[in-house]
Amino acid sequence: MEICRMPDQPRSGVRRRVRYVLGLMSGTSCDGIDAVWVEIHGRGDRMRVSAVGHYHRAYASALRLRLLEAMCPAETRTEELVRLHAEVGAAFAEAARKAVTRRGGKRPDLIASHGQTIGHLPGPRGATATLQIGDPARIAAAVGVPVIADFRAADVAAGGQGAPLVPWTDFVLFRDSKLARCVQNIGGIANVSYLPAGAAPEDVIAFDTGPGNMVIDGLVAHATNGRGRFDRDGRLAARGRVLEPVLRRWLRDPFFRRRPPKSAGREDFGRPFVTRELGRLKKASGRAEDWVATATALTARTIAEAYRRFLPRRGTSPAVDEVIACGGGAANATLLAMLAGELPHIAIRPIDAFGIGRQAKEALSFAMLGAAYDDGVPANLPQVTGARRAAVLGAKYLPPAGDP
Amino acid sequence: MEICRMPDQPRSGVRRRVRYVLGLMSGTSCDGIDAVWVEIHGRGDRMRVSAVGHYHRAYASALRLRLLEAMCPAETRTEELVRLHAEVGAAFAEAARKAVTRRGGKRPDLIASHGQTIGHLPGPRGATATLQIGDPARIAAAVGVPVIADFRAADVAAGGQGAPLVPWTDFVLFRDSKLARCVQNIGGIANVSYLPAGAAPEDVIAFDTGPGNMVIDGLVAHATNGRGRFDRDGRLAARGRVLEPVLRRWLRDPFFRRRPPKSAGREDFGRPFVTRELGRLKKASGRAEDWVATATALTARTIAEAYRRFLPRRGTSPAVDEVIACGGGAANATLLAMLAGELPHIAIRPIDAFGIGRQAKEALSFAMLGAAYDDGVPANLPQVTGARRAAVLGAKYLPPAGDP
Repeated sequence: MEICRMPDQPRSGVRRRVRYVLGLMSGTSCDGIDAVWVEIHGRGDRMRVSAVGHYHRAYASALRLRLLEAMCPAETRTEELVRLHAEVGAAFAEAARKAVTRRGGKRPDLIASHGQTIGHLPGPRGATATLQIGDPARIAAAVGVPVIADFRAADVAAGGQGAPLVPWTDFVLFRDSKLARCVQNIGGIANVSYLPAGAAPEDVIAFDTGPGNMVIDGLVAHATNGRGRFDRDGRLAARGRVLEPVLRRWLRDPFFRRRPPKSAGREDFGRPFVTRELGRLKKASGRAEDWVATATALTARTIAEAYRRFLPRRGTSPAVDEVIACGGGAANATLLAMLAGELPHIAIRPIDAFGIGRQAKEALSFAMLGAAYDDGVPANLPQVTGARRAAVLGAKYLPPAGDP
Repeated sequence: MEICRMPDQPRSGVRRRVRYVLGLMSGTSCDGIDAVWVEIHGRGDRMRVSAVGHYHRAYASALRLRLLEAMCPAETRTEELVRLHAEVGAAFAEAARKAVTRRGGKRPDLIASHGQTIGHLPGPRGATATLQIGDPARIAAAVGVPVIADFRAADVAAGGQGAPLVPWTDFVLFRDSKLARCVQNIGGIANVSYLPAGAAPEDVIAFDTGPGNMVIDGLVAHATNGRGRFDRDGRLAARGRVLEPVLRRWLRDPFFRRRPPKSAGREDFGRPFVTRELGRLKKASGRAEDWVATATALTARTIAEAYRRFLPRRGTSPAVDEVIACGGGAANATLLAMLAGELPHIAIRPIDAFGIGRQAKEALSFAMLGAAYDDGVPANLPQVTGARRAAVLGAKYLPPAGDP
């Protein structure tokens, strides 16, 4: 399941040794913790990476509710945050321990933990503030191996936004000497990492293209009175008709014309957008399938438009040979078909074809960032995050003496 | 100004090299940041340590007020804590940068930052929670050297209270093959590290003896309508008379008989204690000098009683040859004289006699803990903190590439 076809590295010296890194991640939806076992040969941006196991552990529902309540910009108490730091750390430790048991008790060489973002406040250079909680020392003590954590701080300290950090790992995983590739993540928001053929790290372009599943999910939830949370496999959209006048109106949003680097958030395409646009949709059609088809087309069209506007060209088309789709939206067949229609002559492949589960991608990326820390290799891309300098990301916690 | 007379170590090998570590500390009073330059020869618990520079930088008063407001158990907002993490980090970074400038711009090899405790919630084994803020990555970026921070987490993860961490450094600094020593810190609370002659780390006994300056300061503030904050040099107490019946009553507090390890806090001897006892004091005497003398005697007497009750004996006396007094109370001549009266035949020496400024001691200790991390040497004392295992304390942040 080797996914990056780099030429073999010399079979001598200490770096021949394989490393096993366990990557731990919980996203802003607070569903729970993904623990992904990663086998790594080589070092720095020449590492070759395979995902060899994936374990998901949901947060206890009381803890999840407390996290959602405490998240920025909520009111909370200092004491509650101090306790959440400890309890989320314990939950990550338990997920790591279970992931170790699942692989027969063999410990990884290293753990990389993203932790749980409790607040991320972008600002002008030097004014960004970010805080991830989930005490890494508890993970180190529970498993008995070093833990790298707090990955966003170094980029922020170097003047960056602390995000996105995944483009470096997209570069390491998917750069190709002959093919120009887009790694297109379709989560709530959609974002792309563009890797020109033969790219160096400084050639990577990455930015948010706009909504991913956020508008689709919001409309499905509205149409089903909250019973449906997303359009499984794109079935609703497949039965609908795109409401072109509404779509054209949406495409006039100035976000889509703004030059990258740029990022979109819930404030742009979340609940307020859906609530505001429902009237327009209902006036155009009484069928929820049509609304969902229109939202799906918005995602596909804005991804394609972003490529045409902001990526290098080859003739009249964007210089892209292949799109690697990941995130929940990569399971939406209708969305991928629309995207294929928008981007003729460009192959669109789900990331699963590369041996990486859609749900495993982010935890795998942080495992790679942990390995990069140990290699002393900077893994932020300043042209992407806005940082003034390249930075080795993370902080290293050591395990206590003796067995856990 | 070498303070630890260890036999010289072999003058060969990489460890001959001297390290310069900058220790950064801000206490719970939030006065500001102490930055102490420390020269270190040797490694682990054989390091030889000199304080070679001390720079204090007050917090901007608005930041100090925000910190005091946010501190446990206050109400606050998540967003405010995220911003404080960034801004306290920037204040620490600025203090470090100024400390570097003061020494001609030469960078240290390493920085050790305690950060600012925003909440420390002791609990039974595994249930302690603690959070230090002050983004270490900003310090690393500002000075361009690695930063070790988050020192309490590993001890807490190993089942300890995360405090006190200074006893290991007291052991390294002051253990002696012939003399049994007490390092007696007199801050708001008073705490002792007992180092028997020829002690190994596991022989160290450390605990809170009771109030340090807390009751004295509270009474001075009351008597001066808040204009005085402490009894400078013990002058008020020197003019007063100890109110023995009140003192005897105070000494009946069950805290003093409880066996160590134990810790006292503001809830035991802070404002509620002073408010409650004022009536009793005023009934016994109309003179504020007498109240302050009585509070000073309380500190001296409870320190001496703790030695007699809880330290090993030599005949009928505690097996102590020398008391090294540090903290603000070490400047209180009346207190030291009372303590000498309570402990005949035991030498009492202020820590300044060892080349360490009273105000520099804690930041110096964290510099030593940072060096211990780099040496891979555990620096918690499980018998002191309650941890199940010895642990290397801290997490290491690396500076970004290029010059700050």
